[in-house]
Amino acid sequence: MIFSSFEFNKEEAIYIQIENHIKDNIEKGILQNGSKLPSTRELSSILGVSRSTVVTAYEILESEGKIKSTKGKGTFVTSNKKVAEKSFNIDWESKVNGYAHTCEELDIIKTEIPWEKGMISFKSIAPDESLFDLDEFKRAFLNAWSLEGEKLLNYGYARGYKALIEYLMKYMENKGVNTKGKEILITNGFTEGFDIVINSLTVPGDRILCENPTHNTALKIMRARELDIVGVDMDEDGINIDKLSEELRSNPPKLAYIIPSYHNPTGIVMKGERRKEVFELFQKYSVPIVEDGFNEELLYSSSHVPPIASLCSSGNGVIYIGSFSKILFPGLRIGWILADKKLISTLESVKRTRNIHTSFLDQGIFYNYMISDSFRRYVKKVRRHYREKYNFTLDKIKQYIPYEYIMGEGGLHIFVKLKGVNARRVLEECYKKGVVFTAGDIFYTDNKGTETLRIGFSRVSMEDIEKGIRIIGETIKEILEDK
Amino acid sequence: MIFSSFEFNKEEAIYIQIENHIKDNIEKGILQNGSKLPSTRELSSILGVSRSTVVTAYEILESEGKIKSTKGKGTFVTSNKKVAEKSFNIDWESKVNGYAHTCEELDIIKTEIPWEKGMISFKSIAPDESLFDLDEFKRAFLNAWSLEGEKLLNYGYARGYKALIEYLMKYMENKGVNTKGKEILITNGFTEGFDIVINSLTVPGDRILCENPTHNTALKIMRARELDIVGVDMDEDGINIDKLSEELRSNPPKLAYIIPSYHNPTGIVMKGERRKEVFELFQKYSVPIVEDGFNEELLYSSSHVPPIASLCSSGNGVIYIGSFSKILFPGLRIGWILADKKLISTLESVKRTRNIHTSFLDQGIFYNYMISDSFRRYVKKVRRHYREKYNFTLDKIKQYIPYEYIMGEGGLHIFVKLKGVNARRVLEECYKKGVVFTAGDIFYTDNKGTETLRIGFSRVSMEDIEKGIRIIGETIKEILEDK
Repeated sequence: MIFSSFEFNKEEAIYIQIENHIKDNIEKGILQNGSKLPSTRELSSILGVSRSTVVTAYEILESEGKIKSTKGKGTFVTSNKKVAEKSFNIDWESKVNGYAHTCEELDIIKTEIPWEKGMISFKSIAPDESLFDLDEFKRAFLNAWSLEGEKLLNYGYARGYKALIEYLMKYMENKGVNTKGKEILITNGFTEGFDIVINSLTVPGDRILCENPTHNTALKIMRARELDIVGVDMDEDGINIDKLSEELRSNPPKLAYIIPSYHNPTGIVMKGERRKEVFELFQKYSVPIVEDGFNEELLYSSSHVPPIASLCSSGNGVIYIGSFSKILFPGLRIGWILADKKLISTLESVKRTRNIHTSFLDQGIFYNYMISDSFRRYVKKVRRHYREKYNFTLDKIKQYIPYEYIMGEGGLHIFVKLKGVNARRVLEECYKKGVVFTAGDIFYTDNKGTETLRIGFSRVSMEDIEKGIRIIGETIKEILEDK
Repeated sequence: MIFSSFEFNKEEAIYIQIENHIKDNIEKGILQNGSKLPSTRELSSILGVSRSTVVTAYEILESEGKIKSTKGKGTFVTSNKKVAEKSFNIDWESKVNGYAHTCEELDIIKTEIPWEKGMISFKSIAPDESLFDLDEFKRAFLNAWSLEGEKLLNYGYARGYKALIEYLMKYMENKGVNTKGKEILITNGFTEGFDIVINSLTVPGDRILCENPTHNTALKIMRARELDIVGVDMDEDGINIDKLSEELRSNPPKLAYIIPSYHNPTGIVMKGERRKEVFELFQKYSVPIVEDGFNEELLYSSSHVPPIASLCSSGNGVIYIGSFSKILFPGLRIGWILADKKLISTLESVKRTRNIHTSFLDQGIFYNYMISDSFRRYVKKVRRHYREKYNFTLDKIKQYIPYEYIMGEGGLHIFVKLKGVNARRVLEECYKKGVVFTAGDIFYTDNKGTETLRIGFSRVSMEDIEKGIRIIGETIKEILEDK
């Protein structure tokens, strides 16, 4: 601070010396316009002079317009060094690298038609927050609090909150996964888990295989990494086996990214038989699988289709990335990677490099919520709720929209293939009528899918679902008639 | 699920058909050892048969050792397809890229001598959690909860929680920063903020300038990015002006990373005059500054030294990264980047690509804590507390440790330069005696600092501080006498 090395002389009055010292520092530009000065009480104790002396100095400076005191906020410098400051401007756009540019170009929040207040939006596939059981969540906070208290507020471990990791290990075992030789890393949701895996295991130009279409955030991460993305077309049961086997035979990729349950965007659930065929193909060509556990919980509490990871009972060839974000508290950003022990140890160091660890408070609350009976009851509740909504939405699509085919069998969205109509054209027209949805092309690896669209219904009321889909249907018919 | 496409025939008894269908799926390997079966209730409703029929089928399978029911957990497959499963193993180490390897090699949690229970550890510079005002924090949670409720649990904005951003904008203005043309991005602490800035603005091989020594996490991030790191030596007032000006003149770097307050590891606070000189040099050569606001709050509530960002009142040449992690709730992982509006918009897209956003629950709680009077009172309290502890530790170091010089003037750590003794040798000996600290070499860009060490005292009791430093001092004397 400017008074740290300040010494009084015997000649001048104290208040004048204080006044001049502050003026000098403003002149030198050390005190800038807006700089905060110590309170008169603080400065008098720092300098060991009476408070009234400091008050006098401040009053003079204020009368000269050099400083200004604002009740309750403090005293601030209001005048600058007279000579105009040379400004220091950087053309940041020219400094930003290709990675950041790609992240921005592929940021659908910026590039897609935005939702506006009062519109009916089928864009979201986030859970309906009105279904969250808030009392249970509050109780989970209070439990975590009484259990760990301040420990949750200080630094934790990059690997994650131990109790939550152990819970998730058992949770994966209940899905039929053999966790021997495997470990878990807690991440900020699926997105961070996938971003860490891709950026730790690939280099630009690497071939990576995925379903076509696939999760657009995963596509964005792979494109930002400049990977050579090989999309394999899907049939109604999931990734097409013949095309997959052809790709693997001709030029095996470094990694594969697969979404077996309620695939985004198609909603397809890969049946056990198909999962096994897919697994054995990758095994045959020793191509590791990154499995996206997306929305698995929506079918979990009935007999679930075991994840692909469960087929790899004696090997380490599958990296499973899990998240509850599509049914539970996405705002908390909690996901996990289950993989080979040594690999997890490396990814843990990457996680530590990037942000040290995921919020321990959130992990503590999350854990306490999961061990209560709430989660089981909640999943039961939302499964019923979303199933009803799914069936209702499906009926309305069949009733109003002229489609070629509809894909999927549940989840929080429905994927529709139109016939002879560009979905973007439909979106533009619907937008004018206050209805928005997601054009399907953003999910494709090869600019296909121009006639597809994704209807996310989780956060739309039954009434708006019917109204919105009717409008989409009418719009499509208008466009078809124009031809 | 395996029964989704199942149809009964007229010939066999239902329970036998169920039994055989499950056996087939085990044979085919679709049901793995550990796979969970539907409950008898679920399956009977799925198949539309009586529950007792399903129970009979399960009893037979269990008697044959094919499945096992565990009370409260469910029914699981216990036997595998007979033919031994080809295992699917990947040599992950060979797949991991250079970036991930560097993150692991530079992960001091793995490479440095670990703290063990019962030891006196001077390694941590995290805040003392016993100082956290837990009641205030709990109140902040309850306030956030009643204010926003479930909204905090669903997806939010990559930019951050609006109210917190506005609060921090004012907070920066009170530090004398002109926020015109600037915006804020909320990150998971300083670490993520810096990682995002580095990975968005540099490419491997870029020259980056920093103080030598400097924050080792920042060094790790820059090395993982394969940057050409130019460390500029420090004198007692901060980065050395002559050396800095020489570096900037001879070969201007792309960016500079500077820690002006309670510099890590030296603890030096750059005075206003020096800050101005430094700023003007970078301005002269148009080299952008990434300013680490590290620990600024520890001197904030008295007249603070304005951050370098405040000197750049009419330009965008400074990126300021702030965090309260060294005094407040590091477990929550909340920091922020204040920078040019357009740049922040790009970094927002990078943040969205990496993990969508920082926990909104945490941001909501944090905001409600900050707007209460708690923060001001807390900072007052911890400043007094840490100042006493700092002075006590300094006295003990002077009393016990034969040093060449001691750097810094506060904060949560003290940096000591020994004379003719390797700090790692001292650390090894002290470790045997139950005392650990941080060897200073990890903070250097050029393998210097072998005779330096950092003493973090924030979480050590006065008693242990004296005991631990006495042991360190005795050990050094022993080593010196051995020579």
